Amino acid sequence: MKRLLLNCDIGESFGAWTMGLDAEVMPFIDCANVACGFHASDPQIMRRTVALATQHDVKIGAHPAYPDLVGFGRRSMACSPDEVENMLLYQIGALDGICRAEGTQVRYVKPHGALYNDMMRKPELLRAVMKAVTAYSPSLPLMLMSTRDNSAAQTLADEVGIKLWFEVFADRAYDPAGMLVSRSLPGAVHHDAETVAAQALSLAKGDALTASDGSALILRADTLCVHGDNAGSVAAVQRIRKALEQLPA
Amino acid sequence: MKRLLLNCDIGESFGAWTMGLDAEVMPFIDCANVACGFHASDPQIMRRTVALATQHDVKIGAHPAYPDLVGFGRRSMACSPDEVENMLLYQIGALDGICRAEGTQVRYVKPHGALYNDMMRKPELLRAVMKAVTAYSPSLPLMLMSTRDNSAAQTLADEVGIKLWFEVFADRAYDPAGMLVSRSLPGAVHHDAETVAAQALSLAKGDALTASDGSALILRADTLCVHGDNAGSVAAVQRIRKALEQLPA
Amino acid sequence: MKRLLLNCDIGESFGAWTMGLDAEVMPFIDCANVACGFHASDPQIMRRTVALATQHDVKIGAHPAYPDLVGFGRRSMACSPDEVENMLLYQIGALDGICRAEGTQVRYVKPHGALYNDMMRKPELLRAVMKAVTAYSPSLPLMLMSTRDNSAAQTLADEVGIKLWFEVFADRAYDPAGMLVSRSLPGAVHHDAETVAAQALSLAKGDALTASDGSALILRADTLCVHGDNAGSVAAVQRIRKALEQLPA
Amino acid sequence: MKRLLLNCDIGESFGAWTMGLDAEVMPFIDCANVACGFHASDPQIMRRTVALATQHDVKIGAHPAYPDLVGFGRRSMACSPDEVENMLLYQIGALDGICRAEGTQVRYVKPHGALYNDMMRKPELLRAVMKAVTAYSPSLPLMLMSTRDNSAAQTLADEVGIKLWFEVFADRAYDPAGMLVSRSLPGAVHHDAETVAAQALSLAKGDALTASDGSALILRADTLCVHGDNAGSVAAVQRIRKALEQLPA
Repeated sequence: MKRLLLNCDIGESFGAWTMGLDAEVMPFIDCANVACGFHASDPQIMRRTVALATQHDVKIGAHPAYPDLVGFGRRSMACSPDEVENMLLYQIGALDGICRAEGTQVRYVKPHGALYNDMMRKPELLRAVMKAVTAYSPSLPLMLMSTRDNSAAQTLADEVGIKLWFEVFADRAYDPAGMLVSRSLPGAVHHDAETVAAQALSLAKGDALTASDGSALILRADTLCVHGDNAGSVAAVQRIRKALEQLPA
Repeated sequence: MKRLLLNCDIGESFGAWTMGLDAEVMPFIDCANVACGFHASDPQIMRRTVALATQHDVKIGAHPAYPDLVGFGRRSMACSPDEVENMLLYQIGALDGICRAEGTQVRYVKPHGALYNDMMRKPELLRAVMKAVTAYSPSLPLMLMSTRDNSAAQTLADEVGIKLWFEVFADRAYDPAGMLVSRSLPGAVHHDAETVAAQALSLAKGDALTASDGSALILRADTLCVHGDNAGSVAAVQRIRKALEQLPA
Repeated sequence: MKRLLLNCDIGESFGAWTMGLDAEVMPFIDCANVACGFHASDPQIMRRTVALATQHDVKIGAHPAYPDLVGFGRRSMACSPDEVENMLLYQIGALDGICRAEGTQVRYVKPHGALYNDMMRKPELLRAVMKAVTAYSPSLPLMLMSTRDNSAAQTLADEVGIKLWFEVFADRAYDPAGMLVSRSLPGAVHHDAETVAAQALSLAKGDALTASDGSALILRADTLCVHGDNAGSVAAVQRIRKALEQLPA
Repeated sequence: MKRLLLNCDIGESFGAWTMGLDAEVMPFIDCANVACGFHASDPQIMRRTVALATQHDVKIGAHPAYPDLVGFGRRSMACSPDEVENMLLYQIGALDGICRAEGTQVRYVKPHGALYNDMMRKPELLRAVMKAVTAYSPSLPLMLMSTRDNSAAQTLADEVGIKLWFEVFADRAYDPAGMLVSRSLPGAVHHDAETVAAQALSLAKGDALTASDGSALILRADTLCVHGDNAGSVAAVQRIRKALEQLPA
């Protein structure tokens, strides 16, 4: 069985402001989605973040976003595909520049926040993202959301010539289409650690989840999104890591 | 005789605002100092600028600056050497990311405005700049100002292991130390096209200039700074280019 | 007959970048929509702009926008009503602070670009805009777009307790609902100076326009939007001004 | 005896990032130096901060800064007096705009960080600050640092026509000129709560402090700078408040 990579947003401090328990969560993850200065971070923090990831042998991914520090990249902006393509090239390159000084490099790309959501909804933005990533380096995978039917994204990826890493969530309920149930609905977020670890295991083993309508849902799972925001989420990551390690190799 | 490269600040538009006659001056220069988004430009403009330079077979240089769009990077900021090093890595990488999508790459680095002036005055900043450039790529030259005695900069460069391109000016008067005469003093700027072209030729041939105190001044000259701000400066570039081409190869 | 006020976006330079022929158009307008630093302008330019408007006895309006300098405030951003309310208070206050140093004050508010469009489509944003303006000062009018049926906006305004100035356009075609025909459609923009001046006169006299489907369209018109971008648009403003002055008082 | 006002930097969060224990420290201070968006804060946070201060009947001061979010306004920038004057008008006005929606207003101004230090060193910047504050409102006091000899600042203030509030520190050692001993020197910062409270009492009573060279130092003290960064500093504020309340009225 292929190993399910744990990915986590990292390096989201900014200037004098601190966010996230990067040092605490880094030992337990495989992939660090490193903020690139558009929704969070700055060159100083990027340098420290890259050094920390390197020290723990964690893969560094670019985590590009809309240019919106005040909104933390969570507000959708009406950017054109060209604008998205070029803002990705800029941010991936900027992080890779920092990586060079630490003897490492960007290994994958995962768009952040509203840009991530928008690319999942708008094929022209997804294509722009793919074009940027593959133009930067043909070997870089793009991390995006796994749904029940990933064929449209896969077809586009084949056309552009880019590798995809499909991402799943252990702490969120899914609807029958394999989309996340809106946070505004009851049961959207799993708060129980047992439930979260169990869903992570199911996803890792390729077992079906139960969607919000009771139907069985099988999701392609290359990587699992985890969080390092606070002590509770770091503990959850440790638990997930431990559960996954008990799977037969 | 070695060819004197003409370098010009390019790509200094920003968003909806246009600055400079990039398309007009590009055919006559060798090196384009491309703004990287901190004092001017944005990913869209960087993409267009890189495409234009590539089309004219002009070398692309990163033109990093202090983070000061409102002040166009012309206001000195009390940044630490670490901050300077990391903001350079970020900006060089960002431009290089854009370059990849146009099948080209950054060929040299020239700091902009107040950062350029500050690195010429403060060895710890010059060292930080050199460290960033060489960490990004050991083969990238750094463009900096030629003065009567370049030995301190050269010693530092040898220590860091970086190549230097010394820059001279044809439209400015020099003081005996080989520093530019302050713009606030009479005679600091040559407005006469003949004088400018003559100084360019002298610099290209390695002839001595006459410094502001009447002394002879010989400057190492790898590259000459020219301007594409307006029709007059573009005409001056054309005249300099023509004068240089009449030199024996 | 009430005088049709000419309003024009003004003060949209930024830092070292210049935009618009402010000095040329100022003598011919009644109301200057002054950028407040979120989509354009900065404190220096705001000061100069306010001084220029004051010198020509032109009413100063705040022209607040989404926080998007790179996109010139033209890209819709998913901001909450609270965010819109507070960003307006901030920008109106900032401009009014500059006004105090020139012995004047903000006289009205006209949102810019995407924020203007969004408030016309989303009642919760229009309400947020109105709340901000009236909280700033109960006597400040809000400039917004006149359509065939302004009753929804008027009802909301009556509820909030704010005065409205309805804005019309002389250089754009209208659809039957009194919305502007999309620029992507043929005939959307009137390029002929005669047509523009004639439409301005019709609007000033309260005559019906002919909408894109041939129907008659009467629009409440308190103010007419004009442009100072270039020599052609300044000439158009002069022509409109002259035409309006020939109306009986 | 005049009451020594406790002033504290407040509202220094930004977007998704939190800084400072504003709610905890607010009940114990008299004056809140509210960040205005240039070194910290944004319209949303300013609104919440103003509401919190109002609820505790704390005076709201504008805390304007250089435009440097990444550097938290702590890096000196080579801004001209004109630039400083206008950036102050902008920031004071912006905060006052937010205040209007909460039924209150800006009561004083205290520049932040590097701008505070620079105005204490450069009379042309201090004059620019004074011009801005008095142009905004002739009744607004300016908070600045008390030193052994405040006559130069007072003379300038009398000329400009502005009231000054001199600020002192209870947790810092002073040199004989009444300047703060550099943090890089031993003994510069008082960490002992007793010492801090004792220095606060001395300052409130007008008693002499002992400067770093052993000389007696009397400082005019209108207001004392306290901190709400963490639990320890909030406890220190409570202790100072209690000590001051035991003074005879």
